[in-house]
Amino acid sequence: MHNPAGIAPPFSCYSHGASASANARWLHVSGQVGVTPDGVVSPDPKKQIELAWDNLLAVLADAGMGMADLVKVDGFITQAEMVPLYRQERERRFAGHAAATTMVIVAGLAEPNLLVEIQAVAAR
Amino acid sequence: MHNPAGIAPPFSCYSHGASASANARWLHVSGQVGVTPDGVVSPDPKKQIELAWDNLLAVLADAGMGMADLVKVDGFITQAEMVPLYRQERERRFAGHAAATTMVIVAGLAEPNLLVEIQAVAAR
Amino acid sequence: MHNPAGIAPPFSCYSHGASASANARWLHVSGQVGVTPDGVVSPDPKKQIELAWDNLLAVLADAGMGMADLVKVDGFITQAEMVPLYRQERERRFAGHAAATTMVIVAGLAEPNLLVEIQAVAAR
Repeated sequence: MHNPAGIAPPFSCYSHGASASANARWLHVSGQVGVTPDGVVSPDPKKQIELAWDNLLAVLADAGMGMADLVKVDGFITQAEMVPLYRQERERRFAGHAAATTMVIVAGLAEPNLLVEIQAVAAR
Repeated sequence: MHNPAGIAPPFSCYSHGASASANARWLHVSGQVGVTPDGVVSPDPKKQIELAWDNLLAVLADAGMGMADLVKVDGFITQAEMVPLYRQERERRFAGHAAATTMVIVAGLAEPNLLVEIQAVAAR
Repeated sequence: MHNPAGIAPPFSCYSHGASASANARWLHVSGQVGVTPDGVVSPDPKKQIELAWDNLLAVLADAGMGMADLVKVDGFITQAEMVPLYRQERERRFAGHAAATTMVIVAGLAEPNLLVEIQAVAAR
């Protein structure tokens, strides 16, 4: 993890940079959304964020990786009001593993009922 | 490709996760847009999507890679109505190679006449 | 760097594709914003872009990398009017090292006063 002393610290729980060793296997995780295994999307932003994380971790696990292997996590949210919720859940999931991150507010996602999408890159 | 059984299947033709072997050479492709070799941008969304794919594949080829090496494909579109068109063309180009993907609707691209931009990561 | 002859040249100073050797160490840099070391955000777009670059390069340096190791640089800006400014500063910083890039206009960033966010991937 890279957090140089000369610049402002991260706004919340993440690192300014993250790298992996030269011989790592890299995994790219598609943007995960807040959908249950049977396809239900809750209108509640908090529920969607939690489910997107559940799904992201399931993909990591399927590739033989876990939270400690996350290098970068990108969040796309549709409402500025979701920023604190998004950060809280990210910090809760990171549980001390501060990967690199980017988060932007987008004009929309693939379906009108989706409020958040989270993609990731991991290496092991 | 990683599509764990415990979560909802992908919404369309892509994989939830994609990885490459540890000793792969990685290529990052800049956001490609629907511009012809002589600089013309059609106002037709479908034409732009097709051309962006043509350009993306030309960059892959220049790096000695092809469709089978695509690990992640990200689409940025400017209109929610383009989602079905975007997915159709992606599925057609994938032709069975379901890479990981993310697609979001953005507020705009580098020029007002651009409706779609597609970037990619590939490994071989 | 990959700029195939058969497609339109890049719109500004960047390459259509960039790759690194198979045994490279990869660094992911979080979205950097225009904040001073003591947390001040100027309302001036040009100042924010310059500071975001300063911060990005500080993260690169902290990882033992520099401009020549940049493979991909992604810009998220909140105003279409910032495109020329964004490109000018990117070209100035690149100083001939044309990495791959993507730039999109987003609906917003993590705080209302932020106008630009720049993330990067580097390899050495």
